[in-house]
Amino acid sequence: MTEMISTSVLNAENASREPALKRDYDSLGERLSGRGIDIDAIKNKVAAYGVAVPSWGVGTGGTRFARFPGPGEPRNIFNKLEDCGVIQQLTRATPTVSLHIPWDKVADLRALKEKATSLGLGFDAMNSNTFSDAPGQAHSYKFGSLTHTDAATRRQAVEHNLDCIEIGKALGSKALTVWIGDGSNFPGQSSFTRAFERYLDSMKAVYAALPDDWRVFTEHKMYEPAFYSTVVQDWGTNYLIAQELGPKAFCLVDLGHHAPNVNIEMIVARLIQFKKLGGFHFNDSKYGDDDLDTGSIDPYRLFLVFNELVDAETRAAEGFKPAHMLDQSHNVTDPIESLMTSAMEVSRAYAQALLVDRRALEAYQQDNDALMASETLKAAFRTDVEPILAMARLESGGAIAPVATYRASGYRARVASERPAVSGGGGGIV
Amino acid sequence: MTEMISTSVLNAENASREPALKRDYDSLGERLSGRGIDIDAIKNKVAAYGVAVPSWGVGTGGTRFARFPGPGEPRNIFNKLEDCGVIQQLTRATPTVSLHIPWDKVADLRALKEKATSLGLGFDAMNSNTFSDAPGQAHSYKFGSLTHTDAATRRQAVEHNLDCIEIGKALGSKALTVWIGDGSNFPGQSSFTRAFERYLDSMKAVYAALPDDWRVFTEHKMYEPAFYSTVVQDWGTNYLIAQELGPKAFCLVDLGHHAPNVNIEMIVARLIQFKKLGGFHFNDSKYGDDDLDTGSIDPYRLFLVFNELVDAETRAAEGFKPAHMLDQSHNVTDPIESLMTSAMEVSRAYAQALLVDRRALEAYQQDNDALMASETLKAAFRTDVEPILAMARLESGGAIAPVATYRASGYRARVASERPAVSGGGGGIV
Amino acid sequence: MTEMISTSVLNAENASREPALKRDYDSLGERLSGRGIDIDAIKNKVAAYGVAVPSWGVGTGGTRFARFPGPGEPRNIFNKLEDCGVIQQLTRATPTVSLHIPWDKVADLRALKEKATSLGLGFDAMNSNTFSDAPGQAHSYKFGSLTHTDAATRRQAVEHNLDCIEIGKALGSKALTVWIGDGSNFPGQSSFTRAFERYLDSMKAVYAALPDDWRVFTEHKMYEPAFYSTVVQDWGTNYLIAQELGPKAFCLVDLGHHAPNVNIEMIVARLIQFKKLGGFHFNDSKYGDDDLDTGSIDPYRLFLVFNELVDAETRAAEGFKPAHMLDQSHNVTDPIESLMTSAMEVSRAYAQALLVDRRALEAYQQDNDALMASETLKAAFRTDVEPILAMARLESGGAIAPVATYRASGYRARVASERPAVSGGGGGIV
Amino acid sequence: MTEMISTSVLNAENASREPALKRDYDSLGERLSGRGIDIDAIKNKVAAYGVAVPSWGVGTGGTRFARFPGPGEPRNIFNKLEDCGVIQQLTRATPTVSLHIPWDKVADLRALKEKATSLGLGFDAMNSNTFSDAPGQAHSYKFGSLTHTDAATRRQAVEHNLDCIEIGKALGSKALTVWIGDGSNFPGQSSFTRAFERYLDSMKAVYAALPDDWRVFTEHKMYEPAFYSTVVQDWGTNYLIAQELGPKAFCLVDLGHHAPNVNIEMIVARLIQFKKLGGFHFNDSKYGDDDLDTGSIDPYRLFLVFNELVDAETRAAEGFKPAHMLDQSHNVTDPIESLMTSAMEVSRAYAQALLVDRRALEAYQQDNDALMASETLKAAFRTDVEPILAMARLESGGAIAPVATYRASGYRARVASERPAVSGGGGGIV
Repeated sequence: MTEMISTSVLNAENASREPALKRDYDSLGERLSGRGIDIDAIKNKVAAYGVAVPSWGVGTGGTRFARFPGPGEPRNIFNKLEDCGVIQQLTRATPTVSLHIPWDKVADLRALKEKATSLGLGFDAMNSNTFSDAPGQAHSYKFGSLTHTDAATRRQAVEHNLDCIEIGKALGSKALTVWIGDGSNFPGQSSFTRAFERYLDSMKAVYAALPDDWRVFTEHKMYEPAFYSTVVQDWGTNYLIAQELGPKAFCLVDLGHHAPNVNIEMIVARLIQFKKLGGFHFNDSKYGDDDLDTGSIDPYRLFLVFNELVDAETRAAEGFKPAHMLDQSHNVTDPIESLMTSAMEVSRAYAQALLVDRRALEAYQQDNDALMASETLKAAFRTDVEPILAMARLESGGAIAPVATYRASGYRARVASERPAVSGGGGGIV
Repeated sequence: MTEMISTSVLNAENASREPALKRDYDSLGERLSGRGIDIDAIKNKVAAYGVAVPSWGVGTGGTRFARFPGPGEPRNIFNKLEDCGVIQQLTRATPTVSLHIPWDKVADLRALKEKATSLGLGFDAMNSNTFSDAPGQAHSYKFGSLTHTDAATRRQAVEHNLDCIEIGKALGSKALTVWIGDGSNFPGQSSFTRAFERYLDSMKAVYAALPDDWRVFTEHKMYEPAFYSTVVQDWGTNYLIAQELGPKAFCLVDLGHHAPNVNIEMIVARLIQFKKLGGFHFNDSKYGDDDLDTGSIDPYRLFLVFNELVDAETRAAEGFKPAHMLDQSHNVTDPIESLMTSAMEVSRAYAQALLVDRRALEAYQQDNDALMASETLKAAFRTDVEPILAMARLESGGAIAPVATYRASGYRARVASERPAVSGGGGGIV
Repeated sequence: MTEMISTSVLNAENASREPALKRDYDSLGERLSGRGIDIDAIKNKVAAYGVAVPSWGVGTGGTRFARFPGPGEPRNIFNKLEDCGVIQQLTRATPTVSLHIPWDKVADLRALKEKATSLGLGFDAMNSNTFSDAPGQAHSYKFGSLTHTDAATRRQAVEHNLDCIEIGKALGSKALTVWIGDGSNFPGQSSFTRAFERYLDSMKAVYAALPDDWRVFTEHKMYEPAFYSTVVQDWGTNYLIAQELGPKAFCLVDLGHHAPNVNIEMIVARLIQFKKLGGFHFNDSKYGDDDLDTGSIDPYRLFLVFNELVDAETRAAEGFKPAHMLDQSHNVTDPIESLMTSAMEVSRAYAQALLVDRRALEAYQQDNDALMASETLKAAFRTDVEPILAMARLESGGAIAPVATYRASGYRARVASERPAVSGGGGGIV
Repeated sequence: MTEMISTSVLNAENASREPALKRDYDSLGERLSGRGIDIDAIKNKVAAYGVAVPSWGVGTGGTRFARFPGPGEPRNIFNKLEDCGVIQQLTRATPTVSLHIPWDKVADLRALKEKATSLGLGFDAMNSNTFSDAPGQAHSYKFGSLTHTDAATRRQAVEHNLDCIEIGKALGSKALTVWIGDGSNFPGQSSFTRAFERYLDSMKAVYAALPDDWRVFTEHKMYEPAFYSTVVQDWGTNYLIAQELGPKAFCLVDLGHHAPNVNIEMIVARLIQFKKLGGFHFNDSKYGDDDLDTGSIDPYRLFLVFNELVDAETRAAEGFKPAHMLDQSHNVTDPIESLMTSAMEVSRAYAQALLVDRRALEAYQQDNDALMASETLKAAFRTDVEPILAMARLESGGAIAPVATYRASGYRARVASERPAVSGGGGGIV
């Protein structure tokens, strides 16, 4: 196993924090015990939990206005895996990486798999990209991909998805995630109905190539890059797709892809109830698809999503097996730090949701005691579960304080000297 | 036939406007002819088109802060029918009335039907009310109706819907519209999943009682009166309901019941495509469920909805038979004037959508000529079709200028003297 | 001093919880001490903090669709004060009551003041109501009050505000809060400019009557009850008003009165910077002016507002003296329970904001260390400060667990037997 | 004068359409005459009206996901001016161009001015860019420009604005537009107050360098590229800036820069009333800053903005002299076609607003006749003013049908052969 951060740094950082952690963990354990909760049981669940990291997340993101790259940006998928290795080593919460094709396309898949294995990483869902044109591509996606009015363009987009499945098979992935930018910028530009018919036709061709033990996740998004309509605009359309395609098709929920004010946790509940929740792209947002760090804007909303997930887990809801992935754009932070922090936020929401007194909650719901039902959730949310998360990390070989340990390690400066800088990109579009 | 507005007033008003109308109609006909359109064919379609008026719409609406009644408010459903009679007499675009039970409940249904017939009115969908408590009601709907945790309350709500069907059968209605206020104000107050299971159970009992030639319309709404979640929050959930219930169940779209920025015309297209569009509650809004006069805030959005409807009509889409109804709250206008104006706005959007050059549009869509596709819709929308609407009214016995004719008739002053005023109501809630 | 809840119940409830509280308080104190924070200093600040209760909040609220009253609703302002007395007795965080005139108008102001004093309550800002018509009122506010096109109506509205000042003077209030429903439902209905000119004229007349030691708070709101435009629609207009009126005029921020996604804490910062922050109407919301319990939907947002307030307090920002008031509608809970819980949420946000390491935060800001700046706020927010709040209550004579103690006291059942029920109201408006 | 489109093509295209135009113009004139309106007077006002074209608008825009360039994209500002020359030649509604520095920076300003003059173009406001890093720039704007915590970076940003003024002076511009991307992505990242203090300091330095006959326009935007807060987030802050800077400082309104549902025409009215409306960036949007073609999504909203402008023009409001500019991103259309169409949409809204019967409107407002006030605006909006616009173009030497004429000219194919293609850019950012 290749350790990206030296064990001596990690151990030293942990050693200085371990006594305080033990004290806090015991103190919290005592208080939880008073509420009838076994802290070790929670810790074990948290330790077993993981969220996938997107390969593209370790590079600096940007906007249509500009991109401001940081030092030591990864040059290729091998660099990216190393950065992902850091995240997993310190947080022990991100055991898999999700690739984006063609961005992460390489000739030697065996080498890629070996690299991942050496870093203790596996591969999560494959992501296909038909929202931008790759160099030398025969047909442009300017006016759509899987829904294009031109059959050859649609076929090219279908083939690309089939390629992604093949790559995924070689790497041990078990799922394909399809998000497309197809849509329209003006009323009339596209026929809603015909475009969706074409979409379903294309996706049926992709679905037909899906191995038996794979799942396909389709992802809805209200707008951007299309600014009047998008083909898979909301969970309603997403559900129709999963229904039309068949039992291996599921809906992916990206927390930032909804209209303002929408109750996302309710959508999650509906998809669970109708056995079509595929999983998540976690992030946070205040305005649109801001792709900010998970839990940074509205942590209670994240908790409420996990409250539904733990509810389903507790009920052993039929067909419930969501995939969890981060999907963020790191424009002003070190991507490694943001991804570590976000993975911990996801774990935190999970831990808090595990603390909900579900028997009491159900009784309050039955009695229409709205105030106490609300307080039951708030009480779980207010519990500072950091000692649980930190202890889970420590016992799994990770860092009590991942960001501090990472900074102490000097990793960023090291890769900055090894990886040549590239120009900004992304600018000039207004 | 009882004419609520005297024929002499109507004739005099029309006479003064007829020469100009003829001139404008001919001039427009000539210009449309240059675009290959037969103005009389459009006029005939418009003349055949009708939108239902809600019985509750002829009273002054209000907010939780206050209600400011106007003079001559209807005291009962017979008064309301008379006001609806005025609207239909002058616009010839509102041949049916939609009742709300228990608000419009009467002992003598035969008398009610005769009254309507005498006014040239029929009955559209029945609306059940389980969002407020009627005097003497055994179980309160404070915490829900069809989804209540208490079985007896759910049963009461189901029975009320069965009553509505019975009343409707006696009156010649062929549809039941179900909108409920059920939901929650706080996270945790209600289990999304269990509440929806109860909803489906209740609705299945209602559905079972539906006559073979009836349809049931369920209506989604994002929020209000519940402010954290509503059980039928969006078209996705609404579609699931229609699917679970069966072939007589359809989704009703109220234009004001969506999240900000949502592309409503696209939802309409999806429901048509999947054969579950039941119909509309027309109104307009800028913020929430403002229930403003149709077309008063964003007339282009209304046109785009009708563009989808005419597209489906032209394609003879399978199962396409939407019901059209106004649903507005008239807080600062004379409700009769607002309903006449709104009925004309609906007809206007229909007429404009009929003018779209669909062959050209389809070609532009096929060629991804976004600009010309957009301009094709805009060209139809920009056409001032008022002469077509006015001519259709005139030839059907209505008024060229309904509002002016209504004002000239003195109807409001007359009923103000006949109908005693009641106190405001609605206030005191902040 | 009249104790609404018997001391024996209170003491018994506290006694059962005191040992655990002491343990939790000490444990938290130790952890905070490790972060360089003196828990007693925080507790003392929290104990000194108070938020006003609105007199109208102790009645059950409703929507335009319905109101579902609970048992024992207050019949008059004396009843309301008693309920407010319960809230203050148990939480020790709500020392004042804010009246609404004419709802709370009484002949004998001396008796009112004595009643309040006997309950340990003072009077916060006076609220004038010109958004609904009082019985027998000469001019209707249907089309506006302070901005009405009719001078006599404007004068009446001005006079009403002058009355409010007089009543407030008699009761010891020091501020007038003006929120009006004036606006328009349709484009064109009102001239934005002329309406605002009339508003300023009217308010100048009110301002002229303001005692020297009073302040006037104007409150902006984006929409409702007007659904196209409101005269004081946002903080920009609100600021212009405060600037035009003079040094005793300030802007009031109701957390639920903004457009979707608006950054409210930033508005708070701007008003502080320009010395025009008057204070708050606290509540929470997911969609519009939902008036839900404070902190029930997005507790982090509430914390971020308090982060600005504590920042200003720490900097001793010039002219910084905001008034704090709850303003909520309790539709599905016992209003007393909601107000107690909400007062505690406000205190909680204050306590959390006091924990922010401001020196570290400023350094991170200076260095553009976005991640650590964000984490600095999150660390404070994540701290469970309940032991601090509970200890502050206990030491001030309140309840460790106000809701449980209130339920144990049987207060609601007692007043239900003493106060006759009234009919629902609020319904029938759709 | 260099004609970019050959006169023979233009004349031929016009000749084929002139008879029908004359007929339509006369027919409309007759109808308007019946409403007391002189069509020639309207036409003359429309002919005198112009909107500036942004130099960056003639290139294909994109999103953070991808940019799909079209054929014949301009390589430099001289190419761009030629494209702008086409737009002005055919529409006669875009006499000036607005530059963006450093994008349009050239060594030889005299040559640039001569080029513009030869095309019949002048220069509108200068736009400074401190939201992206130019190659070789000493200090990065990653964490801000005019508000950066580092004084040297702020100074660099100020200097850049001073450069823009110098360039503008050489070119005959009379205004500087300042929009910055400064803000924060996370709560805590930036101090709202200190950042705004730094902003004001920087802008005061820019203001000090402003020639006496210049104006400076500051532009607010709610979000993007910053996703938690922006320094000039709304018109309230924008107004404070204009007030702090002085009499040459004004607020610029970009129609796409507001929160959902915000009443933009009301903001326009407030800024006019307080003498701080600087002008507009016109475009349209459904979700965020979509930068779609003006009038393509909500044409009535555009009309309502112009209704305020014409109202102010009619009243001869003090200090009213707004600058008009298009600011759009053309991702799926030929930019020249979109800009021509958009310029015509702006003229259309102006023409429609000129048709409003302002005397009647004022009377309805005075009488609170909301319905007729609304109908008065709708009647003007519904008038198809295309014959007026086309006649104004024809008489000024432009095209009756600019898009058709442009297509007939083969201009795009010609420049495609002259201007080498460049790679996509903009992609790879997710």
